[in-house]
Amino acid sequence: MVKISLIGSGNVATHLGQALSCVKGCEIVDVCSPHNSGTLAERLNARPVTRPSDVNPRSDLYLISVADDALPEVVRQLPENPDAIYAHTSGSVAIDVLKGLSDKIGVFYPLQTFSKDVDVDMTRVPLFIEGSDEATTVLLLDLASEISGKVFRADSRLRGRLHIAAVFACNFVNHLWSIADELLGQDGLSLEVLYPLLEETLRKAETNRPKDVQTGPAARRDHNIINKHAETLPPELKEIYLLLSGSIIRSQDEPNQL
Amino acid sequence: MVKISLIGSGNVATHLGQALSCVKGCEIVDVCSPHNSGTLAERLNARPVTRPSDVNPRSDLYLISVADDALPEVVRQLPENPDAIYAHTSGSVAIDVLKGLSDKIGVFYPLQTFSKDVDVDMTRVPLFIEGSDEATTVLLLDLASEISGKVFRADSRLRGRLHIAAVFACNFVNHLWSIADELLGQDGLSLEVLYPLLEETLRKAETNRPKDVQTGPAARRDHNIINKHAETLPPELKEIYLLLSGSIIRSQDEPNQL
Repeated sequence: MVKISLIGSGNVATHLGQALSCVKGCEIVDVCSPHNSGTLAERLNARPVTRPSDVNPRSDLYLISVADDALPEVVRQLPENPDAIYAHTSGSVAIDVLKGLSDKIGVFYPLQTFSKDVDVDMTRVPLFIEGSDEATTVLLLDLASEISGKVFRADSRLRGRLHIAAVFACNFVNHLWSIADELLGQDGLSLEVLYPLLEETLRKAETNRPKDVQTGPAARRDHNIINKHAETLPPELKEIYLLLSGSIIRSQDEPNQL
Repeated sequence: MVKISLIGSGNVATHLGQALSCVKGCEIVDVCSPHNSGTLAERLNARPVTRPSDVNPRSDLYLISVADDALPEVVRQLPENPDAIYAHTSGSVAIDVLKGLSDKIGVFYPLQTFSKDVDVDMTRVPLFIEGSDEATTVLLLDLASEISGKVFRADSRLRGRLHIAAVFACNFVNHLWSIADELLGQDGLSLEVLYPLLEETLRKAETNRPKDVQTGPAARRDHNIINKHAETLPPELKEIYLLLSGSIIRSQDEPNQL
């Protein structure tokens, strides 16, 4: 039986904890969180703990899923167990933050945005795994494969690059939707009017390569419309409009921007 | 019986034609297209016509769904029928292009991106309607309501603004996905690894206001990560990264960018 101590009770901890508690041969023994650990612990049939120093010192795996900037302090307080694996779940923190706890350290990074009360199909969520040594890596890869069909090795450098891609594909995309929402608000409309268009745009991007299905004034090199649009926008949005339009035009010229 | 002549056989014409052919009291009498009109005409049980000048001169509605720059020439060739309504389906062309054909002109603009062989639920597609006079507008609104539950009045100015919002929300978004795809390609991955994340990002944006669910380094004002990311990017992508990050940060300060 793999005994797991889960440190954290946020969105990632909740979804990973639920998935791991269903894996045969795994047992979440305790859930550590300064607040609210009771709720998740109860759901996972685990012992609630409020301080990292009180976590079971004989677990096989310590899975640390807390805010990036809370990681060093949690690491300082956790019991040291040279036989255990310690892994964090962050996309942007290097594995080294765990050094000192054990020789066997790792990263167990789910590339997804979680909301506490929204179920996510974990079998489709990509998990990126790093381990301090091959045995640790393989153990974490095996565990990851129990909950997801998309498991990859990724060192800290690759995780950083995945994070940048996700910023473009998700954070910036959400911001563009926010800008559209604001523009539509001027006419008493909202982004809702574009929902079918957003959904179809995503469907198209997922069934093709997005570059091959690029549409719009820039893809058509319709400088007449581009200039007309830009003229009506306030300075900041005009700058974004022209920069992205130029980038679309150039990306069609060059096979690769990188 | 409303007799409709459909001019065009592209994606928009195909989807609108199919929807209209199912409306009780409507009949598509002919489909005009220099090429391929046979296929769509056959599917709609209509007469195939290759030249606009050969279109039935006694139709009640001429629905012109051709490329923007082909509109003036099609208009020049169509039979004039003072009793009929002439409407085009373009988001970016003013109603005036139809002047001279009849006093009753209009626009019937579906805000969606269509692919020929992919079914779209037309009842959810927003239709934006403009008419030269109230009677024409009401007739087009009524017809639109037969195929969609989302029908709006929109003059040429509003259509232009909708188009700008759609460029941000769809064309630019697709380009950001294309950039992410390219970045991931450097590590032998592709955008596919982000599909669950894209889908969840869209779900979140549709169940909230996107501005309220903005995440990422810029939303957290994590200048450390922003600068680290920017340093690794080639100049053009760095410029996009910094401009959009700055825009996210400013949009959180100001209630409204416009």
